[in-house]
Amino acid sequence: MVVFIRALLVVLCIPMLAGAQDLPSWNAGTSRQAIIDFVQKTTSEAGPAYIKPEERIAVFDNDGTLWPEQPYYVQLAFALDRVKLLAPQHPEWKAKEPFKSVLAGDLGAVAKSGPRGVAELVVATHAGMTTTEFETIVSEWFSTAKHPKTGKRFLDMTYLPMRELLDYLRANGFKTYIVSGGGVEFMRPIAQATYGIPPEQVIGSTIETKFAIVDDVPVLRRLPKIDFVNDGPGKPVGINKFIGRRPVFVAGNSDGDYEMLRWTTEGPQHGFAMIVHHTDSVREYQYDRTSAFGKLDKALNEAELRNWLVVDMKADWKNIWSSGN
Amino acid sequence: MVVFIRALLVVLCIPMLAGAQDLPSWNAGTSRQAIIDFVQKTTSEAGPAYIKPEERIAVFDNDGTLWPEQPYYVQLAFALDRVKLLAPQHPEWKAKEPFKSVLAGDLGAVAKSGPRGVAELVVATHAGMTTTEFETIVSEWFSTAKHPKTGKRFLDMTYLPMRELLDYLRANGFKTYIVSGGGVEFMRPIAQATYGIPPEQVIGSTIETKFAIVDDVPVLRRLPKIDFVNDGPGKPVGINKFIGRRPVFVAGNSDGDYEMLRWTTEGPQHGFAMIVHHTDSVREYQYDRTSAFGKLDKALNEAELRNWLVVDMKADWKNIWSSGN
Repeated sequence: MVVFIRALLVVLCIPMLAGAQDLPSWNAGTSRQAIIDFVQKTTSEAGPAYIKPEERIAVFDNDGTLWPEQPYYVQLAFALDRVKLLAPQHPEWKAKEPFKSVLAGDLGAVAKSGPRGVAELVVATHAGMTTTEFETIVSEWFSTAKHPKTGKRFLDMTYLPMRELLDYLRANGFKTYIVSGGGVEFMRPIAQATYGIPPEQVIGSTIETKFAIVDDVPVLRRLPKIDFVNDGPGKPVGINKFIGRRPVFVAGNSDGDYEMLRWTTEGPQHGFAMIVHHTDSVREYQYDRTSAFGKLDKALNEAELRNWLVVDMKADWKNIWSSGN
Repeated sequence: MVVFIRALLVVLCIPMLAGAQDLPSWNAGTSRQAIIDFVQKTTSEAGPAYIKPEERIAVFDNDGTLWPEQPYYVQLAFALDRVKLLAPQHPEWKAKEPFKSVLAGDLGAVAKSGPRGVAELVVATHAGMTTTEFETIVSEWFSTAKHPKTGKRFLDMTYLPMRELLDYLRANGFKTYIVSGGGVEFMRPIAQATYGIPPEQVIGSTIETKFAIVDDVPVLRRLPKIDFVNDGPGKPVGINKFIGRRPVFVAGNSDGDYEMLRWTTEGPQHGFAMIVHHTDSVREYQYDRTSAFGKLDKALNEAELRNWLVVDMKADWKNIWSSGN
């Protein structure tokens, strides 16, 4: 009966008082409390900080915020696997960078190929098929792909405290979005099951697609051309393009989120911002200012000035993995 | 009490039997019945055509489908007014096409300037300001702008039967989107009040924007460059980019909707398509195969073959305008 009443309140968008059941994987402390305080004050209809339900837009970075980005982005793991799979059809890759280094397992050399090398990898592994075919390729890859350090499936390595946060916000009438530098069609096939976020609430980088009628069947073909990079200053651009509203809650973890943190907190509603700080070398990874993936420097320097909450993963999170610690 | 129960059913997404109160501005007949039959069969959980609520994506063209596009697009009326307003700051326009013809009121010559001329008009009237400033400009224009023939405000000239259709679909758990060739930031400021469609469910053509921090304030500036044209084959591209799901209901009125009609009806769910046919020269306009705006030729030819409903505005609609006939 309690469950039923709770579900009914959610459906009716009636704010609930936070109880011990909310954010159970967060240790009691200032971080958890700051989140709860924000949600309570913005959902209290009588209060001065009240935000109408339709304006409760919450945006989340993905890599390093909802799941790990070490030792490299999950999508890069996908691209590396695709290169190995497609190599027999591309004998020329044995002599061509960055493919040569990928096949030799030399990720340092891949990283050195820079944005141009990464773009070549993306185009070679993410284009040429229809959108429907790509969705199948991604879904099948995720069903077995595992993290190189933990041996867990990537899908079992989302951060449990962040999933609880997504649930908590939704239970209080917030609409949750992913706003990631990753490819939108790489994340969409798994976002609903993994984060409870439907495809239309996933914003990311895009490849160009072209409509065609092939054998009298309409298809969308993925072209070998980057359309939009949803990272850094591209994130507020993507938010405006796809949502058309200023968010009131934002979670990120790197300087690639800096602009959307400012865009959110300096909007008319003075939104809430949090940074996931990777401080746990034992349970996850410890990195910030000098990391090749998810560098956090400028945003960390300005966090106090701008009143952005810095979440200390080691101290604030009781559990880390959605699959159990 | 009936109203309350009805509202509760809507909130709980429980399908309702269509009654006389649904689609009241539609005359009884095959068009109205075809829509109701589709909604009933796709929302009957026990039936073979059932569509889960999260997959009930309904997309609507705007110009000519939800409001008029004659004697020219509403957004063109906006651009023409902007040219006149800005002319004192641009003395060079007196000698430069298409501005010269706009200022002379010679719309035939403007039309002859072609896509390049139209693009110049758009860039001159829609770019250079921040997104926030543009929203204000658009909202203020709509508060007074009137249709050249009827003298009614454009905002009072949405099609009442289509607004009822939007309501009816939403009451049955469908998520309604605008998918228009018009500019997304031109439609968003009025879509909620006019159609009950929130900004994040408006898909349209986009201009490039750039994030900048000006005097320590983050802004998005609209650049004089077209980013994406959401028309014709661009419509399925836009739908895939923004929604990431295949729609199951589509409404259009011109060949610019042809590709999204096929994309919807030839999807795995065999969606429903309707074409608003402008047959009413007295209450609205009568046009199709040769119109400069909203040409309907190919889609009309193939409608029967593809089982697309052709709505006869004159015969099927009891009322036309949202403000009353």
